Amino acid sequence: MILTVTPNTALDITYRVRSLRPHSTHRVSEVTERPGGKGLNVARVLAALGHEVTVTGFAGGGTGRIVQERLTTTPGVVDALVPIGGATRRTIAVVDELSGDTTQLNEPGPTITPPEWSAFQEAYEGLLASASAVALCGSLPPGVPVGAYAGLIRTARAAGVPVLLDTSGEALRRGVAARPDIVKPNSDELAELTGSHEPSRAAHAARRRGAHAVVASLGAEGLLAATPEGTWRAGPPGRVHGNPTGAGDSVTAGLLAGLVEHRPWPERLVRAVALATATVRAPVAGEFDRKAYEDLLGRVAVTGEVTAA
Amino acid sequence: MILTVTPNTALDITYRVRSLRPHSTHRVSEVTERPGGKGLNVARVLAALGHEVTVTGFAGGGTGRIVQERLTTTPGVVDALVPIGGATRRTIAVVDELSGDTTQLNEPGPTITPPEWSAFQEAYEGLLASASAVALCGSLPPGVPVGAYAGLIRTARAAGVPVLLDTSGEALRRGVAARPDIVKPNSDELAELTGSHEPSRAAHAARRRGAHAVVASLGAEGLLAATPEGTWRAGPPGRVHGNPTGAGDSVTAGLLAGLVEHRPWPERLVRAVALATATVRAPVAGEFDRKAYEDLLGRVAVTGEVTAA
Repeated sequence: MILTVTPNTALDITYRVRSLRPHSTHRVSEVTERPGGKGLNVARVLAALGHEVTVTGFAGGGTGRIVQERLTTTPGVVDALVPIGGATRRTIAVVDELSGDTTQLNEPGPTITPPEWSAFQEAYEGLLASASAVALCGSLPPGVPVGAYAGLIRTARAAGVPVLLDTSGEALRRGVAARPDIVKPNSDELAELTGSHEPSRAAHAARRRGAHAVVASLGAEGLLAATPEGTWRAGPPGRVHGNPTGAGDSVTAGLLAGLVEHRPWPERLVRAVALATATVRAPVAGEFDRKAYEDLLGRVAVTGEVTAA
Repeated sequence: MILTVTPNTALDITYRVRSLRPHSTHRVSEVTERPGGKGLNVARVLAALGHEVTVTGFAGGGTGRIVQERLTTTPGVVDALVPIGGATRRTIAVVDELSGDTTQLNEPGPTITPPEWSAFQEAYEGLLASASAVALCGSLPPGVPVGAYAGLIRTARAAGVPVLLDTSGEALRRGVAARPDIVKPNSDELAELTGSHEPSRAAHAARRRGAHAVVASLGAEGLLAATPEGTWRAGPPGRVHGNPTGAGDSVTAGLLAGLVEHRPWPERLVRAVALATATVRAPVAGEFDRKAYEDLLGRVAVTGEVTAA
């Protein structure tokens, strides 16, 4: 199975209102809820692609119970979240019916205690034994040491499990130094890590810092990959309209799927761009449009060069 | 015990943000949660005054579980909420740290099925057997017939239990016709019921429609009571600054406490105004400042006349 780690899981709630006006009262016309946090989103996409996925991280409180109940009804996803005393955070997206614009309210998340963090590390090591790849996804909640991902990367490498890291800031900086197989920053995260705003230069700089491969997401321009086998760019055919929520998590899912199937890099990138584009186009945030995905697989352009052996 | 009925219970969530700006992302700095819906607020105040209270209405889903867990840790309040298949609604109050202004997002609430409504009616009849008074509080959720409160009032009267009604619109109109002991509308609700914007005239009109006593809340001006024993006005000493959330529920609690202790009307009104004023003054929305309450008991002014026997 593929293992995804989400230390800061969430219950993602979406409200539809006519138009959000500060300091007034709104009747919510529609409420939708689903398990959230990057690794849970990645897992949902991987499961939809037919992969067996196990999710771990933390869950607690009434919101954690709702997240776990929802996971039991998601085919292909196995729940291995570790219980905590605090309550899983909520995120609320308030969508204006009139404009389609979204206002986001993100709770801070519970504090993880040292015994909870130890219990998680033990569970993680056990899960690695049957994992073909692991993705470490998103921010670290309060209480988790900032070098946490670096430690989890070393554990995965010691177990011979390839590891993808998708985070930002100091957690990314320390994680990269632990030599993960793939990091997947966006252009801002990459610039913050390397000090360079030129994506190609920054991606190579990130490799020198320790990442075996760097896949930078450049928004509408697609992906830039700097790997030991070569350097490529992959982009969608034409401009894409829609909701970009979850597109980055679909990139991660595409990269992991290509990794465990031992596809060459250009094929992994095509898949990742096709999934991300099909996610932007889907009517529901974070879902992907399967027909669009299959159609896009033949239409994503990849350019690049292979490194001389 | 005193029984409060809240058909549309809620999980009331308060978020503090720096300043709410539509179409941007906000980090919530503080999250507070508590059981909500008018009857649950009334119960909390009555329990703080030393009364035994039982709450009924509906609870379901993950949010309902959180509401019920919180009730178990509220001393003096007994949970007799009836389980439903749908999920209890959330209300979210987003408070700007800079201005103190509040933006409110209210979920619609679950639909009550006919068997759930029947189960509630049966539970209600059972609870009346040991009730010294009952308060019917707030809006009716989808699925509950608009004449519901009228039926519940008749059941209470048949059981010899005095009944207070605090609702609005058609549910109030039909409820008044069933001859409740007390109705507690605000001036808008009273005007909608009677067609008169003059509170004293409107209160007497509401009595002619069936209510034994009418206590109208006139905001900062206090209360106007039209009862079989006489007509009174009671108001706070001077202008009150603070958060009016929950002040109406504190009025209900004060009236119920005075009712079960068989206090004369002027005393009930003093207590209700003192509680409401101490609620507006409290730093936490919906709580009351006990010291302010005790101090105000001696300072609320009542004027009026007793009906000739």
